[in-house]
Amino acid sequence: MDRKIVDETIAQMGLEDFSTVTIRDIAKLSKKLEQITGEPFVHLEMGVPGLRPSEIGINAEIDALRNFCAQSYPPNDGIAPVKEAASRFVKAFIGLDIDPLCCMPTTGSMQGTFAVFTTIKHARPEKDTVLFIEPGFPVQTTQCDVIGLKHIGIDIYDKRGEKLLTALEAILQSGNINAIVYSNPNNPSWVCFTDEELKGIGALATKYDVIVLEDLAYFAMDFRQDLSHPFEAPYQVSVGNYTDNYILSISGSKAFSYAGQRIGVSCISNALYHRHFDAIAKNFGVGEFGNFMANRILYTLSSGVTHSAQFALAAMMNAACDGRYNFLADVAEYGRRAKFMKEVLTANKFYLVYDNDMGNPLADGFYFTVQYPGMTAVELTKELMYYGVSVFPLNTMGSEQQGVRVCTSFFHDSLRDVFRSRIEQFAKEH
Amino acid sequence: MDRKIVDETIAQMGLEDFSTVTIRDIAKLSKKLEQITGEPFVHLEMGVPGLRPSEIGINAEIDALRNFCAQSYPPNDGIAPVKEAASRFVKAFIGLDIDPLCCMPTTGSMQGTFAVFTTIKHARPEKDTVLFIEPGFPVQTTQCDVIGLKHIGIDIYDKRGEKLLTALEAILQSGNINAIVYSNPNNPSWVCFTDEELKGIGALATKYDVIVLEDLAYFAMDFRQDLSHPFEAPYQVSVGNYTDNYILSISGSKAFSYAGQRIGVSCISNALYHRHFDAIAKNFGVGEFGNFMANRILYTLSSGVTHSAQFALAAMMNAACDGRYNFLADVAEYGRRAKFMKEVLTANKFYLVYDNDMGNPLADGFYFTVQYPGMTAVELTKELMYYGVSVFPLNTMGSEQQGVRVCTSFFHDSLRDVFRSRIEQFAKEH
Repeated sequence: MDRKIVDETIAQMGLEDFSTVTIRDIAKLSKKLEQITGEPFVHLEMGVPGLRPSEIGINAEIDALRNFCAQSYPPNDGIAPVKEAASRFVKAFIGLDIDPLCCMPTTGSMQGTFAVFTTIKHARPEKDTVLFIEPGFPVQTTQCDVIGLKHIGIDIYDKRGEKLLTALEAILQSGNINAIVYSNPNNPSWVCFTDEELKGIGALATKYDVIVLEDLAYFAMDFRQDLSHPFEAPYQVSVGNYTDNYILSISGSKAFSYAGQRIGVSCISNALYHRHFDAIAKNFGVGEFGNFMANRILYTLSSGVTHSAQFALAAMMNAACDGRYNFLADVAEYGRRAKFMKEVLTANKFYLVYDNDMGNPLADGFYFTVQYPGMTAVELTKELMYYGVSVFPLNTMGSEQQGVRVCTSFFHDSLRDVFRSRIEQFAKEH
Repeated sequence: MDRKIVDETIAQMGLEDFSTVTIRDIAKLSKKLEQITGEPFVHLEMGVPGLRPSEIGINAEIDALRNFCAQSYPPNDGIAPVKEAASRFVKAFIGLDIDPLCCMPTTGSMQGTFAVFTTIKHARPEKDTVLFIEPGFPVQTTQCDVIGLKHIGIDIYDKRGEKLLTALEAILQSGNINAIVYSNPNNPSWVCFTDEELKGIGALATKYDVIVLEDLAYFAMDFRQDLSHPFEAPYQVSVGNYTDNYILSISGSKAFSYAGQRIGVSCISNALYHRHFDAIAKNFGVGEFGNFMANRILYTLSSGVTHSAQFALAAMMNAACDGRYNFLADVAEYGRRAKFMKEVLTANKFYLVYDNDMGNPLADGFYFTVQYPGMTAVELTKELMYYGVSVFPLNTMGSEQQGVRVCTSFFHDSLRDVFRSRIEQFAKEH
């Protein structure tokens, strides 16, 4: 890319200070540069699924529309078919028993986490702070800001295993933490917690009575193991095996490439669903945690979830449970892309930032993190722009490390040669 | 109905105290009694559309799904076609100019009002109370409780015209009101504000700098006039003609019988959309009201609205603007039902509670309010249960009057004789 054009465009967009840049800024800038230069970018900044959505979902949705599902309000906590399918899916791929009642569809996982945070805020006014295991999805901390919850973060970079648990416990002892939040696999680092770590987190959640929100946006995408066989080990690991204080957030966006229809599911442990909290009983007339979340929070947020999308998710989950639809075979494509890109990058002086999983190699998946010697995250993001490669700096994602996030979703095979030559040129000139 | 069975079922459900009953309690109780007795109820309690959804919407949605709209995240503030269609619809049927940018689809009007309240809370921390013109939709006050906004109400029963404006101004003078909320036509009374009243409300909104949230859930359903001709007077009246401080909430649920897909649109006046508020600039990095609502609130609430449903609403609104689809011809059925039911009731000692519109007869529409001499709202609700007629007491809807709400949506012609004979028997025995 012509450095002058890039600099001018950055100045025009008022983005000189790259340190406060958002994902949408990067996307806009790189698209603008494509228009101006006529040169296509390699887009690695966005966490947007790049695969075709499941036909099973689309067909179920069309059938539901033909059967006039558009007419009637859906129940606040979801139609029976999706509640049953989600319960079955959790059993088939995690091995956990959660009643259909306790599985509630939401307008994307985004609404699910908003609803969970809001529910916790009202149920537990005596504890005011959410603890995020970082790095993570930055919009979840914005959700807390919108709702009026405090939040703190703890970076896993140099804290795994016992060190992580010790650090968590030090914070939990303050007594003001109401929830622990993490994604597994982790966005952006693709670190996957071990069963031992989850056992420790579960024990802490029970001991200090905090609720764990386990974000499974990248469900079962630890491709080092084959997690695709329903009702058979190995399963997606989960804190749900080790505490009753948990809520799983399962998204239809990545696993089923179904982001456009905004459908996910929040699964509350049976014990937590039925647990009574005085504050919500007093202020809203409903003391039961799950009942309050359904009939006060999900109700006031949107009166339930788009009817047809619920039928789609139910159909996709049931097909996966029946073994008729291997959703992981589709998304394994992301892993193949990550493997190739990592090879090119590390052959050209780049190195992985979050570079191991308790001493083991990381899985290849939707994201990974990378850095170039002698640069800051912001410098690398900007320098790669000159080579037609757009990435996202880690500093806005709760990480204390210098580096950038690479998303594999838009990296088609046709871009392999372009990507290699641009990275080689970058390495030659830096 | 056998009184003993009704009493036993009420006791079993723990509903002896009918004064705190919810709509869903009434619906559940009446359905249970139908099962036990084998005798069908006349369901007048729910505000659920009873007509088939528009084919135009369904077909547009199916096309969008076939074109893989399920794959990509929708923009936070909506796809261009629905933004343009909403802007056009507002011009065609209200006569107002609102830019497409300022029209944002939401997951039902429910999400729209939740987003508006949350936006106002953050934009104007110095004003903490929402003023509801009552009676109204009780879930909107629950939304304020969830969000952490105070609210007060003022009953229109004996306050119309100048008296209403005087009463509003007395409250606005306190300086703590951030918004005024009302539905027009009014749920449950079906009172419709006059243009003069809206002019007064608009002037007050400007004078005291409060935002008017005008809920048009029952869009243009004042059937005393024919509001069905696009780009021609008479128009749906609106406060938008008299102040810049307004947001319209237009629902797809009732006008297009499309409740199941959860789609509505919030239309912010151009001036308010672009207005800068210091508090959100400081706390969220976005000072512009509409931009903040789109990219901080709608984003964190659900990352946008189900893609296919946006195409449906765009298609229905455009068809209405083109004059190809008279959506009011469909819903005029509700008016015919109301007329019949009012005749039967008033011939049998019942009387309308909210019984006139500034001296004129009320319109016949989706709801009306009714009472029987010598009873409280709760007593009447319970007594009608014994006759297989389920209604909803007004006391939970912010009204200071005794009476019940009747919804016409599920009242098919086949029920006319049953309804008449049950009401006649009721009158004979009371």
